[in-house]
Parts: sequence; structure tokens; C-alpha cells
Amino acid sequence: MEKIKLDSREKTDMVDITEKVKDAVKNSGVKSGICLLFVPHTTAAVTITEYADPNVMKDILTSLNSLVPFENDYKHEEGNSAAHIKSSLFNFSLEMIIDEGELVIGGYQGIFFCEFDGPRENRQVFVKIMEG
Amino acid sequence: MEKIKLDSREKTDMVDITEKVKDAVKNSGVKSGICLLFVPHTTAAVTITEYADPNVMKDILTSLNSLVPFENDYKHEEGNSAAHIKSSLFNFSLEMIIDEGELVIGGYQGIFFCEFDGPRENRQVFVKIMEG
Amino acid sequence: MEKIKLDSREKTDMVDITEKVKDAVKNSGVKSGICLLFVPHTTAAVTITEYADPNVMKDILTSLNSLVPFENDYKHEEGNSAAHIKSSLFNFSLEMIIDEGELVIGGYQGIFFCEFDGPRENRQVFVKIMEG
Repeated sequence: MEKIKLDSREKTDMVDITEKVKDAVKNSGVKSGICLLFVPHTTAAVTITEYADPNVMKDILTSLNSLVPFENDYKHEEGNSAAHIKSSLFNFSLEMIIDEGELVIGGYQGIFFCEFDGPRENRQVFVKIMEG
Repeated sequence: MEKIKLDSREKTDMVDITEKVKDAVKNSGVKSGICLLFVPHTTAAVTITEYADPNVMKDILTSLNSLVPFENDYKHEEGNSAAHIKSSLFNFSLEMIIDEGELVIGGYQGIFFCEFDGPRENRQVFVKIMEG
Repeated sequence: MEKIKLDSREKTDMVDITEKVKDAVKNSGVKSGICLLFVPHTTAAVTITEYADPNVMKDILTSLNSLVPFENDYKHEEGNSAAHIKSSLFNFSLEMIIDEGELVIGGYQGIFFCEFDGPRENRQVFVKIMEG
């Protein structure tokens, strides 16, 4: 198991971790298998989207913040219920295929850590590579 | 493959299955690998959230019931379209890492079966443990 | 790794790929393991829902199109931000269990490719089968 460490910069943020995941796959030496990403937090998620235009990330976060407002008569007294809800709407795990020693993702796809209760230091994504 | 069986108590409900999943991992004897959870229903899901405060679960369900109302001119005559939609927004599968014989989850994370068309008896979550 | 190829027919669409996934599992000869589906696009997803009534798919797409409108002052100039957002709300990967040589899914469950920026030809779902 490897750990990708990162800091988020805003209350809601998307951080591109594509290269770090690709590196983990290469470093493993595994030629065929799967790569599992797991987010060990309750106010963050992992997703895929078009990496080339930062406006895509802005649109995703704006839309999600509108669907799940920061304040909404929530009962949870820590004040971050919106972040918990967004994390469950996105997802805590993501699996990809490894083929011929490379991570198999689409040409437009980037892998993003999604911060929903930032900014925070020392966020993590766990990476597990399985051969098979 | 193991099967976790449970009953839900409300129309929408979140049932903590963390200990049952941890037990399945321990009972398998697997030291390193992945643990896959799969929900074999179409009106239920599995997610992760902060387990310590029941208000988090209340906020998640209230928010989801507001985003996807029970009644909304749906065409499906069984009357449970909202449950199908919520299940797809959350997810049917969840994968976690097994390391040193233990399920690797964050300190605040609990694993929850999400009922969206309850209350129901004999709901299930399938557990598959892969060594590697 | 296998590739399921398909065309979508509408701007938003759900295409049943259950039989193709079952065939991939049978053809692999694997008796026990997992089956990973991965969507290599940024405007499409994969999910599970009740396959028997097409109105379920209609209700899912209508609801999703209402939650995430096609036009909404998005910044991304390609005009398909709604599709990116919907794809992240659903999911790019889905994992299922293989037991006794068969894909294990619930009796009401069908597996669907979700098109959010169609209609398009040559959409793909990658299938990876792991023995274990």
C-alpha cells in the first residue's frame, strides 16, 4: 500500500493526482492487474474528470456547492455536513485497470482528489495495486 | 463470498455495518489484499461517513430526500423511482484495502448500508476478499 | 482486459450491458474473483438499476437532468459541463463478485452504461476480471 499526500487550497477544491497514481503503478512493476484508490477521510472523495480545462473543475464544484449548500439547517454541530454529503455523492474508492505495465485511463481523463471541507494539510489517498 | 444480512428500520435509513465488515476480513485470515462490498438490490447502496454522530446520517438522508423527492411525477409505477435514483447517486460497490490483516479505513470512517425504500427485512451486502 | 463497445442514442441515455458483462465473465473461465468495469470517458458513467421497466431509466435521467441542467452559466466552453458533473455523481468504476463461474448480481439488477453527452458512436466500457 502506498500513500499519496497532498494539501488542499480552498474550502472546496480538486487536486490532480494523476501523475502520482501513474508513478505508483510504474514503481510497483506490476504488468497486469488493478489499481484501487481509497480516501480515508469523511469530507473528501476521489473522482475522474477532464483534466485539460480548469473550468471543468470550477463548474463541478460550483454545481455541487449549489446542490448541497454549506448551510442548510443541518443537525450535525461540527458544521461540515455538506462535506459529508458531497463525499458520499462522489465516492471514497475508485478502481482502474493496469495493462502492459501502465494505468489504463482515457485520453481526456485526469484523477482528482476532491476536498469538500478545506483548506487542509496532510490529506491522503491510499493506493493498492493488485496483480492478476 | 460472505453475506451480511440486516433489516432496515425506516423508509430511508443508514445501518452501520463496519464491525461486520471488519469481522469478515479477520475471519478470512487474509493479511494483504482488498475487500469489496456489493449491494445486490436496486433501492439501496453502500457508503462511508463519520460514524460518531447520528446527526450526520440524518443530515445525509434529509439532504438526499430533498434533492430526490419521493414523489416527482415519476413514470415507474412501482412508486420507488426516488430510491433507484438515490442508489445510483450513492453506489452499489465499495472497495477497501486490507493491510497487515486489518481493514484499512480512516479513524472517523464508518461503513453504512443505505436503505432508500424501507423498512425492509433481509437486506444483504455481499463481501468478497481478494488476497494480493 | 476486454472492451465492450456501444453506441448511445440520445443526449442522455442508459444502455443495458448486462449480457455483455456476463459473457465476458463466462468467456474468462474464472470461477471465483471480481469483475471490474471502467468507463474511459469523462461524460459517461456506469451504474446498476432495475432492468425490467424502461420507465426507471427515464425517471433516473429526468431527475438527473433536472438536478444538473444542461445550461447553468457554466464556465467550460465546450458546453458539456453538465455531462462531466453527472458522470462524477454516478461513477466511472463498478466492481462485482464472480462466484461459481457466474457474475453475482441481484435478480432485479441490470448493468447500464450511462451516456450524458450523446448521442455518440464507439463508446466503451473496459472489463477486467481478476481471479482470487
